[in-house]
Amino acid sequence: MHVKELECNAFQPLRTQLVVRIQLPYTRGLFRGSLTDRSQSVTKIKATNITWHEGHVSQEEREKLLNQKGALIWFTGLSGSGKSTIAYTLEHALVQRGHLSYVLDGDNIRHGLNKNLGFSADDRTENIRRIGEVGKLYVDTGVITLTAFISPYRADRQIARETVGDDRFFEVFCDTPLDVCEERDPKGLYKKARAGEIKGFTGIDDPYEAPEKPEMVIDTSKVSPQEAAVSLCEMLEKAGLIAGLGE
Amino acid sequence: MHVKELECNAFQPLRTQLVVRIQLPYTRGLFRGSLTDRSQSVTKIKATNITWHEGHVSQEEREKLLNQKGALIWFTGLSGSGKSTIAYTLEHALVQRGHLSYVLDGDNIRHGLNKNLGFSADDRTENIRRIGEVGKLYVDTGVITLTAFISPYRADRQIARETVGDDRFFEVFCDTPLDVCEERDPKGLYKKARAGEIKGFTGIDDPYEAPEKPEMVIDTSKVSPQEAAVSLCEMLEKAGLIAGLGE
Repeated sequence: MHVKELECNAFQPLRTQLVVRIQLPYTRGLFRGSLTDRSQSVTKIKATNITWHEGHVSQEEREKLLNQKGALIWFTGLSGSGKSTIAYTLEHALVQRGHLSYVLDGDNIRHGLNKNLGFSADDRTENIRRIGEVGKLYVDTGVITLTAFISPYRADRQIARETVGDDRFFEVFCDTPLDVCEERDPKGLYKKARAGEIKGFTGIDDPYEAPEKPEMVIDTSKVSPQEAAVSLCEMLEKAGLIAGLGE
Repeated sequence: MHVKELECNAFQPLRTQLVVRIQLPYTRGLFRGSLTDRSQSVTKIKATNITWHEGHVSQEEREKLLNQKGALIWFTGLSGSGKSTIAYTLEHALVQRGHLSYVLDGDNIRHGLNKNLGFSADDRTENIRRIGEVGKLYVDTGVITLTAFISPYRADRQIARETVGDDRFFEVFCDTPLDVCEERDPKGLYKKARAGEIKGFTGIDDPYEAPEKPEMVIDTSKVSPQEAAVSLCEMLEKAGLIAGLGE
């Protein structure tokens, strides 16, 4: 299905004469200096081993290349519960071990893909839906993907799980007590919520629906990010997504 | 900025007692058989070299791991102009060379992330905006990302270029003549558009705005997908995104 024969007529007629034109009329920052002659016509095309394909590279092929399996580790919990810090710590630990990992969080999602969404219930649902869909693409790419969002609604997280597939979805509940989160208040949001300056703040005047069957529960008032990252690596090893260090 | 000392009080108090609870109450398809004992409490946490982090792994670190630089190769052109076939062929060629590559196209975007969008001008713009934002994430992840969408409007493609950054964005114009595309008509869409069954079809009753300064122009009535993929690999080599085969 993937490989199409040269005899295929989709691109007929094939000719010996080649008219690929590479137009690189302006020098660009990244490669400045190394490429002074980008305005050129490439007419000499080498014979190669490249095969004509009419379908995607499979997830398995990419995973073999990466020596890991793609997965989505979904961190959920109150603001200040430690989701991002654990995700970052785990991301660094995985990359240090030679694994491709990436954190999706407010930094790169709320200011990018989801910048046209607010915080209404509908927009929160769409926010999580899009993150689940991007997570699915990342898992298909073979990346160990970590998402760090409050994601307060159970139904929305369930949709993400179903989108990605139960086999590759790991829900990690940062079950840190509200009073600890509120004392940390890293962004000063609890203070504003208590003062009524922010409406609909999760844990104060908007509900947080705790996971019923999370793959892991972490109370960051009792466990350091390093300890959590170690447990998460062990979870990934046991699930066969990454090789153990001793192997 | 990325590394935070253990003395940091964000997660204080740190305690010796560990209460990470791993809950894996149900056996899941992917790992069935290899994991019969997933219901367990992990209380033994090994001392490790893991360092506490409060920020993302950098793009450079991931690119070093992958031995490549992330980029977005944006294929644009009429329906039937050969965008997907060239993208798939290039994706396979890159993976065969040990490079992580991924194709975003109608298959995985229109039925997933963008399934709530139609084909009005506004929805087309939002479609391309989201693809550009996902492309930015992928480039940050270090992946050589290929997008295959008609993307008929110049302004939308320009937004994608600006989102990703000019240094990492390569616009590839599949400049195949309309009559060739229409003769191929792989999805039977031209026939329907000519019969008036589809309205606003690019090239028939909706405009295609050709790129003014694309990084490459390919006429697939004259060049095979293999030949195009060879040229694109050479472009990536010259841009310093991947190493040459002889190096």
